[in-house]
Amino acid sequence: METVFGGVEGGGTHSKVVLVAADGKILAETNGPSTNHWLVGVDKCIETINEMVQRAKVEAGLNPNTPLFSLGMSLSGGEQKDAIDKLIADMEQRFPTLSQHYFITTDAIGAMATASNRGGVVLISGTGSNCKLVNPDGSQIGCGGWGHMMGDEGSAYWISHLAVKTVFDAKDNLVSPPGDITHVRKAMEDYFQVSDLMGMLPHLYRNFQKSHFAGFCKKLAEGAEAGDALCQYVFTQAGRVLAKHVEAVLPAAQEPLLSCDLGLPILCVGSVWKSWELLKPGFTEVLDEVASSDKFKARFHGYSLLILRQSSALGGASLGAQSMGSPLTMDYKANAKVFYQHTFTSIP
Amino acid sequence: METVFGGVEGGGTHSKVVLVAADGKILAETNGPSTNHWLVGVDKCIETINEMVQRAKVEAGLNPNTPLFSLGMSLSGGEQKDAIDKLIADMEQRFPTLSQHYFITTDAIGAMATASNRGGVVLISGTGSNCKLVNPDGSQIGCGGWGHMMGDEGSAYWISHLAVKTVFDAKDNLVSPPGDITHVRKAMEDYFQVSDLMGMLPHLYRNFQKSHFAGFCKKLAEGAEAGDALCQYVFTQAGRVLAKHVEAVLPAAQEPLLSCDLGLPILCVGSVWKSWELLKPGFTEVLDEVASSDKFKARFHGYSLLILRQSSALGGASLGAQSMGSPLTMDYKANAKVFYQHTFTSIP
Repeated sequence: METVFGGVEGGGTHSKVVLVAADGKILAETNGPSTNHWLVGVDKCIETINEMVQRAKVEAGLNPNTPLFSLGMSLSGGEQKDAIDKLIADMEQRFPTLSQHYFITTDAIGAMATASNRGGVVLISGTGSNCKLVNPDGSQIGCGGWGHMMGDEGSAYWISHLAVKTVFDAKDNLVSPPGDITHVRKAMEDYFQVSDLMGMLPHLYRNFQKSHFAGFCKKLAEGAEAGDALCQYVFTQAGRVLAKHVEAVLPAAQEPLLSCDLGLPILCVGSVWKSWELLKPGFTEVLDEVASSDKFKARFHGYSLLILRQSSALGGASLGAQSMGSPLTMDYKANAKVFYQHTFTSIP
Repeated sequence: METVFGGVEGGGTHSKVVLVAADGKILAETNGPSTNHWLVGVDKCIETINEMVQRAKVEAGLNPNTPLFSLGMSLSGGEQKDAIDKLIADMEQRFPTLSQHYFITTDAIGAMATASNRGGVVLISGTGSNCKLVNPDGSQIGCGGWGHMMGDEGSAYWISHLAVKTVFDAKDNLVSPPGDITHVRKAMEDYFQVSDLMGMLPHLYRNFQKSHFAGFCKKLAEGAEAGDALCQYVFTQAGRVLAKHVEAVLPAAQEPLLSCDLGLPILCVGSVWKSWELLKPGFTEVLDEVASSDKFKARFHGYSLLILRQSSALGGASLGAQSMGSPLTMDYKANAKVFYQHTFTSIP
């Protein structure tokens, strides 16, 4: 059997597995639910990964009892060393035929490894959010990625929460809403199947599921597209705070990243980017301010936003293979494309 | 045996039970851990209450197999009708000798019933926060009380979270801190026994305990008292947002509440009020602004802050007894005292 490399993209709502040959050819792809171990627990996380990989082996016509050469996992929540060491130890023990070698990195680094080996900024806005700048020399600096209890600014969870909180605060007379809450309140009652604010409590506590809560963001996107001002407002705020993440990591960017032809490459990952037109007003406004600030005007000339055309499971597979000294052939140009580009015109 | 009435104060960190005679004499008091069913679950909640009540019966020299006449529970998290109906049904089924009758209200209403039968504002800042205005005619309006996922502004949890979030945002370069983070960061590392931000993740997710997280607030109070500017800042912010809760309910206040000799009575409940001197700058500033606003200057002439000298378990017992047509004798003057009073001098 040829050497087979596995990759996992583990999100807060969906996950994906790819099996790849050394020449980069994709042999199989499978899908599954969340594998964020902070959200679903270690056991569920590794069981889901095992199930997806074994299914992919069968799909690729491989013997499921033959371990992969390596399994590189690009996981949301894959940052804390103790936690990922435990994940790997548990997988080795419980699923001995899964893979010979394991490698875990974050969803951000896995996405970057899918799109480029020259660095850039990864800006994730899916169920949760995260930002990571990777320099050409491999050095990294991050902003965010702490989950819904300590951030997730600009994510689907955060957008949903901001909208719901606006309704609560308006009903409580605690904060005046920035727009009429009628549509959002109705959408909230429909989505969560509640008739009042009190009904939201089980969704926030006893039966809290981040991925379900974050799913309300899709309804807000529909509301914004239909012209509701409050729905549009929450996306504009999300755009602003996502751009603030870029500003936060910008001081660490090495020169080659800033002098790219298309400006700083920002790889946009996660389903909230499907609503780019809604994020755009806030996002571009903040980066315009950054570019005209004394601190950055000499260095920050433009940026391009890229989107992946392949799952970051592929980047995970690539990093896993590389960690064992067996780099995969990657076609970066085919794996990502630019969907927005902006060059700041310098004011003479 | 004389008729015995029970009362429960159920907080997010501690709970209390009192047994009372019809003349208001306290027969026994016992303490226990959190009985907020949103935090600990229904089973743990009712088991803890049963255990505290049975212990109190023994302490009062009563037969633990003889049910109380009524058990009035003043519970944080005791608002949602479906949830409290279920609590009572479960208690009746599992603990048939506990009490003949049950009554559940919120921590705010139980506190108010301890201090007065003429209404006022209850402003809770303990593990969580909540605000309720009770008019002399019994009508109520609330602000907050939605728990840490949707508010709890100004509570110990919120103060702790604000301090920790300030450290995260400063380290991430996402938001400039309003003061040097050195002390708060060190205090956080000591309290949570972590060496970096990553170490905080288990405290926020896998092993999250609201009451433990909120306990960090005490360290921040110590820091503030020792002069740390960021610690002082978070308490000032808490004072501001607590006063905003009063502003939120103020439009609903009936005239007699506003024309009290000592101004609007605000009953301050919860351990964060031990740090009143730290809350004071923000709290008084917001109410000064409210009093001088066009909307309120004709009606809002002053306020007094009161603190309970008895557990709001007593108010719970009183309401429970009253709900069965057997009102207890209450000495409201002895149950609460004014600790701060302010009259706005009208600008001619």
